[in-house]
Amino acid sequence: MQKPLYEIAKFVGGEIVGDGDVVITGVSGIKEARPGEITFIADSRYADMLATTQASAVIVSPEVGRNGEKPLVKCGDPYLAFIDLVNLWAADEIPHPTGIHPTAVIGENVELGENAAIHAYVVIEDGAVIGDNVIVYPHTYIGRDSRIGNETIIYPNVTIREKVSIGDRVIIHSGVRIGSDGFGFTPGDSAHRKVPQIGVVVIEDDVELGANVTIDRATFGMTRIGKGTKIDNLVQIGHNVVIGEHCIIVAQVGVAGSTEIGNRVTLAGQAGISGHLKIGDNCVVGARAGVTKSLPPDSRVSGMPAGPHEKEQRMRASLRRLPMLRAKVHALEKRLASLEAQLNGKTEND
Amino acid sequence: MQKPLYEIAKFVGGEIVGDGDVVITGVSGIKEARPGEITFIADSRYADMLATTQASAVIVSPEVGRNGEKPLVKCGDPYLAFIDLVNLWAADEIPHPTGIHPTAVIGENVELGENAAIHAYVVIEDGAVIGDNVIVYPHTYIGRDSRIGNETIIYPNVTIREKVSIGDRVIIHSGVRIGSDGFGFTPGDSAHRKVPQIGVVVIEDDVELGANVTIDRATFGMTRIGKGTKIDNLVQIGHNVVIGEHCIIVAQVGVAGSTEIGNRVTLAGQAGISGHLKIGDNCVVGARAGVTKSLPPDSRVSGMPAGPHEKEQRMRASLRRLPMLRAKVHALEKRLASLEAQLNGKTEND
Amino acid sequence: MQKPLYEIAKFVGGEIVGDGDVVITGVSGIKEARPGEITFIADSRYADMLATTQASAVIVSPEVGRNGEKPLVKCGDPYLAFIDLVNLWAADEIPHPTGIHPTAVIGENVELGENAAIHAYVVIEDGAVIGDNVIVYPHTYIGRDSRIGNETIIYPNVTIREKVSIGDRVIIHSGVRIGSDGFGFTPGDSAHRKVPQIGVVVIEDDVELGANVTIDRATFGMTRIGKGTKIDNLVQIGHNVVIGEHCIIVAQVGVAGSTEIGNRVTLAGQAGISGHLKIGDNCVVGARAGVTKSLPPDSRVSGMPAGPHEKEQRMRASLRRLPMLRAKVHALEKRLASLEAQLNGKTEND
Repeated sequence: MQKPLYEIAKFVGGEIVGDGDVVITGVSGIKEARPGEITFIADSRYADMLATTQASAVIVSPEVGRNGEKPLVKCGDPYLAFIDLVNLWAADEIPHPTGIHPTAVIGENVELGENAAIHAYVVIEDGAVIGDNVIVYPHTYIGRDSRIGNETIIYPNVTIREKVSIGDRVIIHSGVRIGSDGFGFTPGDSAHRKVPQIGVVVIEDDVELGANVTIDRATFGMTRIGKGTKIDNLVQIGHNVVIGEHCIIVAQVGVAGSTEIGNRVTLAGQAGISGHLKIGDNCVVGARAGVTKSLPPDSRVSGMPAGPHEKEQRMRASLRRLPMLRAKVHALEKRLASLEAQLNGKTEND
Repeated sequence: MQKPLYEIAKFVGGEIVGDGDVVITGVSGIKEARPGEITFIADSRYADMLATTQASAVIVSPEVGRNGEKPLVKCGDPYLAFIDLVNLWAADEIPHPTGIHPTAVIGENVELGENAAIHAYVVIEDGAVIGDNVIVYPHTYIGRDSRIGNETIIYPNVTIREKVSIGDRVIIHSGVRIGSDGFGFTPGDSAHRKVPQIGVVVIEDDVELGANVTIDRATFGMTRIGKGTKIDNLVQIGHNVVIGEHCIIVAQVGVAGSTEIGNRVTLAGQAGISGHLKIGDNCVVGARAGVTKSLPPDSRVSGMPAGPHEKEQRMRASLRRLPMLRAKVHALEKRLASLEAQLNGKTEND
Repeated sequence: MQKPLYEIAKFVGGEIVGDGDVVITGVSGIKEARPGEITFIADSRYADMLATTQASAVIVSPEVGRNGEKPLVKCGDPYLAFIDLVNLWAADEIPHPTGIHPTAVIGENVELGENAAIHAYVVIEDGAVIGDNVIVYPHTYIGRDSRIGNETIIYPNVTIREKVSIGDRVIIHSGVRIGSDGFGFTPGDSAHRKVPQIGVVVIEDDVELGANVTIDRATFGMTRIGKGTKIDNLVQIGHNVVIGEHCIIVAQVGVAGSTEIGNRVTLAGQAGISGHLKIGDNCVVGARAGVTKSLPPDSRVSGMPAGPHEKEQRMRASLRRLPMLRAKVHALEKRLASLEAQLNGKTEND
């Protein structure tokens, strides 16, 4: 796809400074951009890069001045304008599949929405409901009576087991497993006995699930991921976990069964949350932290077991000075012994 | 499926208190239950919930008294009785696939047991042996000369490579990878050289493997998971690891190559075990612990590197008081200096 | 396959001591070997095992003497000779698939190299380029315009998204996800807004990727894994990460976005590296370490946050003695108080 700069300026609602007839052939970051491409500067701190970027045009904020001949597009939020452009180009360059591939195996009483795209070797079981404009890539399995909302994209090799409900505009990356049995066993005389897991999973609108994420179905009731929450690769969500809205859960985090997480919570990479806890709204759990107790809203914790972040940092600083502290105590012991000898010597002489 | 309560009582070997003609349409937890459903109370501490649950009947232990009109089924172990009921309903509501789907690609000299169900797009290579009543969901790959025991269930998108042996009644969740090459390289002049991995994997009877678990094949000999061991999602088992019977291995644990783990061991979530160790029977490794040394039977460890759990807790408590300790040492230094000044002053005056 | 020992000796360039007509039917480790098999001893320390192994012949280094009737093959590097033999047998016993399976779905303008093997239910999108002698196992998806180099092996259930470039002789294990969207969002008024990820992934020659590994595509530019780097199971590589050549990355490691890792770096199991760091050549990051700062070349770190390995060990040793230190401080306080009382008593009496 190629477009003259004036069309791009119109599309993003910006104002051209310089030659609006320059032809733009692609989008890229300011360092990676090649001639023909358009890029952006979010911040006047990076204005120097106007002189060095290979890009043919740059989206900038109103206060950024021109530097040489390069045409600019000024607009209020250059980053958001740029994201819109990237989406425009991406849709053109990597078109998603369309139509129902003849190899798709679709069960009885399946409802397929308008323009749903079902690619090769997808298997959809009886009673599933697929929304409008849903895109399902190859080798994905959708179980009995599951529902996929409108505009949702499912990449290859995904498993959605039975009775799972997925909202609108959800993005599910490759290898995600939704609705596998929760890890529930009860001790028997000689062996663990499986507790059947007959609950469901609900993924609300606008959630994104990273590659190879696993989200188990509830024992009873539901495991739920709230609207707008974004989950990175290889995260584990146990059975009956409830995650609020607009959370950010970074790669390789694990959340154990029945824990409830509030809204706008951040769990940084490789953190772990024990089961049956309540994590309040807006909490931030540091990378690799291990949370073993419930947290009130707005907590910021790190360490294992996780404690308040500032306290953990002080402890860590104390820990670094620990060999020095030991040396000090040793010196004190010597001085005290010498004093005791001196004093007791004196005492005896009195 | 629906059944009158008297049939349910008969099925679980319990005694009805109240109306046995009530029609039961489903099973659920006591909080989640809706009218028509049956639930259970494991413990008289929860007897108050008899008054608030929406369930139409409740399985209780003999000592729980009636509270209102709700019919009860009394039996010795309400939880196990309830699990039996859940399995009864689940089998009816989410039937597994049956038969050999016409799209299954089945190699030469494959033995298929009675009633084996091979669903769409499954690939089974030459010489594999599939037991009776095995269920294989779509998109699963079973390699050359592998064996699957009777009654085993394999969910979608599983890879079982060549010469892997799986026992009876094993449950393998979606995305499990069994028999990938172990991670073995030998340093070369300029590059790592791959050590071929020609051993096998043996999964014994009654094992359960969570979603996206990886179990590597041995270099020589075998990687083995003992009878009745339950493994949660996203766990990594390295080559030549031997795990005993009836262990519980929670999500995201990693066990490095050639480590041997005894029977009835628990590895809590995100723990890591170094290679070439021996972990004795009945050990309990805490969440996020990193085990770097072999452990005698019945050990209980936590921390990184893992130490005895009580000692780790004391260390952690000392650590929390470390800033206070530093303050104490500082105060001691001042008092001692003052004493030294006083004493030496006196001494000089003598 | 079976071969007389003299042929094997010729193949590995070794010298026979004993009966060269012995027929060898397989290869195995010295403990696992059964009659008919050949094994090796890398080191004269293990020479005693010549007497106990069941193997019919043993490859040894020149200084190892004969022990009984067992024929030996002497050669300079017994281990490498043995690896060659294992590869010889493995190629014979577990043949890879060949040819293009009729169920493969191959898009338009796909280039297939000579002898490329595309197995059942593989989907290759438009414009992809598949090199010579490439082997693709079932249920793998290769996206639009991606390139797979010569001799590369892709095991079942792999996802390679669009515009990914894979080198020669790469081994990709089951469940690997290459080119999923990086985890990039920008805060909005009420919701996180997705930052489109339009970069690529480049996997260079001779890389090996373990089962269920995830490697995200770059926002712009590329995520890159350097030549000869070996990555174990369940590792997460974030967007725009650049990893150098001949690194070893052990299971369950996570590397966050935009971090650059040098050549010959080792990241031990379950380690985590924060985003936007530079890790110098030859660094060694310990198991479960959490690296939060850039590291100069040749660093050796452990702990969380990671520090120099020796310092971490001293800190850990100090930590173990912390309860003792607290006891010492307590004793000092008492002695000092007693001294103060004594001295002040004296002072008052003066």
